Amino acid sequence: MTAIGSGGLRPFYSLEINAQAQSLKAQGRDICFLEQGQPAVPPAPKVREAVKAALDGPQGYTHFAGQPELREGLAQYYADRHGVAVAADSIIATMGSSAGFILAFLGSFAPGAKIAVTRPGYPAYLNTLEGMGFRAVEIPLTAESGWRLTAADIEAAHSRERFDGLLFASPANPTGAAVTREGLAAIVAVCAKLGVRLISDEIYHGLDYRGPSVSALEFTRDAIVINSFSKYYCMTGWRIGWMVLPDDLLRRAQMLQQNLFISAPTLSQIAARVALVERDYCEEQKAHYAGNRTLLSAGLSGLGFDVHEGDGAFYAYADVGRFTNDSLSFCKELLEVAGVAATPGIDFDRVSGHRFVRFSYAGSKPTTETALQRMAGFLRR
Amino acid sequence: MTAIGSGGLRPFYSLEINAQAQSLKAQGRDICFLEQGQPAVPPAPKVREAVKAALDGPQGYTHFAGQPELREGLAQYYADRHGVAVAADSIIATMGSSAGFILAFLGSFAPGAKIAVTRPGYPAYLNTLEGMGFRAVEIPLTAESGWRLTAADIEAAHSRERFDGLLFASPANPTGAAVTREGLAAIVAVCAKLGVRLISDEIYHGLDYRGPSVSALEFTRDAIVINSFSKYYCMTGWRIGWMVLPDDLLRRAQMLQQNLFISAPTLSQIAARVALVERDYCEEQKAHYAGNRTLLSAGLSGLGFDVHEGDGAFYAYADVGRFTNDSLSFCKELLEVAGVAATPGIDFDRVSGHRFVRFSYAGSKPTTETALQRMAGFLRR
Repeated sequence: MTAIGSGGLRPFYSLEINAQAQSLKAQGRDICFLEQGQPAVPPAPKVREAVKAALDGPQGYTHFAGQPELREGLAQYYADRHGVAVAADSIIATMGSSAGFILAFLGSFAPGAKIAVTRPGYPAYLNTLEGMGFRAVEIPLTAESGWRLTAADIEAAHSRERFDGLLFASPANPTGAAVTREGLAAIVAVCAKLGVRLISDEIYHGLDYRGPSVSALEFTRDAIVINSFSKYYCMTGWRIGWMVLPDDLLRRAQMLQQNLFISAPTLSQIAARVALVERDYCEEQKAHYAGNRTLLSAGLSGLGFDVHEGDGAFYAYADVGRFTNDSLSFCKELLEVAGVAATPGIDFDRVSGHRFVRFSYAGSKPTTETALQRMAGFLRR
Repeated sequence: MTAIGSGGLRPFYSLEINAQAQSLKAQGRDICFLEQGQPAVPPAPKVREAVKAALDGPQGYTHFAGQPELREGLAQYYADRHGVAVAADSIIATMGSSAGFILAFLGSFAPGAKIAVTRPGYPAYLNTLEGMGFRAVEIPLTAESGWRLTAADIEAAHSRERFDGLLFASPANPTGAAVTREGLAAIVAVCAKLGVRLISDEIYHGLDYRGPSVSALEFTRDAIVINSFSKYYCMTGWRIGWMVLPDDLLRRAQMLQQNLFISAPTLSQIAARVALVERDYCEEQKAHYAGNRTLLSAGLSGLGFDVHEGDGAFYAYADVGRFTNDSLSFCKELLEVAGVAATPGIDFDRVSGHRFVRFSYAGSKPTTETALQRMAGFLRR
């Protein structure tokens, strides 16, 4: 029997903290949940009404790539929001962006291939790559450059160690950093020059506070674009996302989707179709996040945290070096003592994350206010 | 850029036929869908009522391993149905059995490991293994032995080519073959003797027509058990299943679940909790399948197909050698000409499947009757 150790695989600490927080809540504790990136509200009322109605109809598997109506709605989304023509047949509805990453990796790269990701970055990038037998190359980012990835960063990293693919998000998790239109164009160009397959994680699109989100599809059809209904559309638990494939990878990705996943959840696809056109509701939530963003930034700064205000998403990535050099212990204690759940920076950065904590401001205003009050008490102890 | 061919990866032909059938239906054609293994009915009324009520509550991510109430319900299921004690913490709720296979493979085996599967068998086994960089070893089964896997088959295959794991289903897809209690005990014992990790796919449990389903957990805690709400509980499109992990693999599987999938769909988990106790409804459906089974077997035999009557699941795996030696072309023509969707045997058996077709009898009685009439006309042409 082949023994498998955990290798470079690490827990997703945000979810570990969440499990601990849920356990405390079940014991009667009042918890402020700021550890996960999820809106406090459900999707738009019309989305839920559509699902209620659908509960009396068929709920079986859909077309493996997703319901044609959903894929046509997504093609329309690219025409409307980005001015690009995307064929509905180039799209696959996925079980969240999670399944999209799996399909992107297995669809594009040979076993053992090297894929570059940013540090800090979304923890599941590294862990999924490690868990699936790929190799990750980290491109370090700095607070001084606004945590923004540049074409020069990519070129420098590639000259140190060649890689086959680049996966990055804009706006990014955990920093909220978003590249500009010119910055993204340069990243696309440098990937083409280096022969690096670009995977553009656009899951936080719509949640840009400094102007409209820019898709990699505006510059290239060679990139894999991954997106999801989780964040902007308030549908985390629905596990529904999508990907846009370049022609040369489409057939392999479809076959992988068929065999690895069959089809995305049917009710979630029905919900997603409606969510796509219920943008007013999403914009209301975005206005709320914008308010919470100011509240949380000011509050954390007042507590002595060094906070960089991101360009998008709904996270504050705070340097807590004044208080600890062990963010995991800090977060565990903050949860146990003060009832505030937050994510240790080691989730996003295995090198320097010991000095950082990520707070989500996707929750309600009262939750954010209470969390700040509790943290003030916690730090005064 | 690393180029990736399709290698040993094949389409999931059942889903290809389904996509073609849906396209014909959208053009106004009346189609009998017998190509996919899915009940014609939605889950029990109380399941759908619970989901309607939940649409007014929180729908965010759950605990990464699934809602504690669901896992406790599943632990109770093993106590009630199989007389075995399974800790709720040893269970992970998954996005269908599909995600369960991914977690099982990545959780148990090193890249390139060899995993044995039966031929014929579920197409996604081979394709998922191939797509993820594992190697499959096929154990051929025969109609003469009722398509049932035996410990002797495993030992013989292992002596020809060693393998690290064995994945098999009882009842099986596409043959419906189920091993006996003694047969399963012997399979568990031979895996232990050979040092082969057993993955027991129990997705068709409950749909045994010759006595209660037997779980590998009745004989061992070293096996990975995979199950789903898709079949017995009529929840295919809900993408919700579960797995039971042995202690030595649990932590790695949990970390993979966190990073690869976050959590299973929330509404589907809520539905699943109710479905578990709504067994009367499922038993009604099973009685219906039993009637359809007789109807389809007799009808196909009358048409000149050589049909083996399986022990469970809801498929007739028919030898169509009298009519064709190219089951894919046969199925495409059957669909285009007669409006009957069925799955070519090459999905399940790349060697001898050209002579076989799988028909599902999970649909309604009228659909089955109409399909038989249309096939009679098709074959008389």
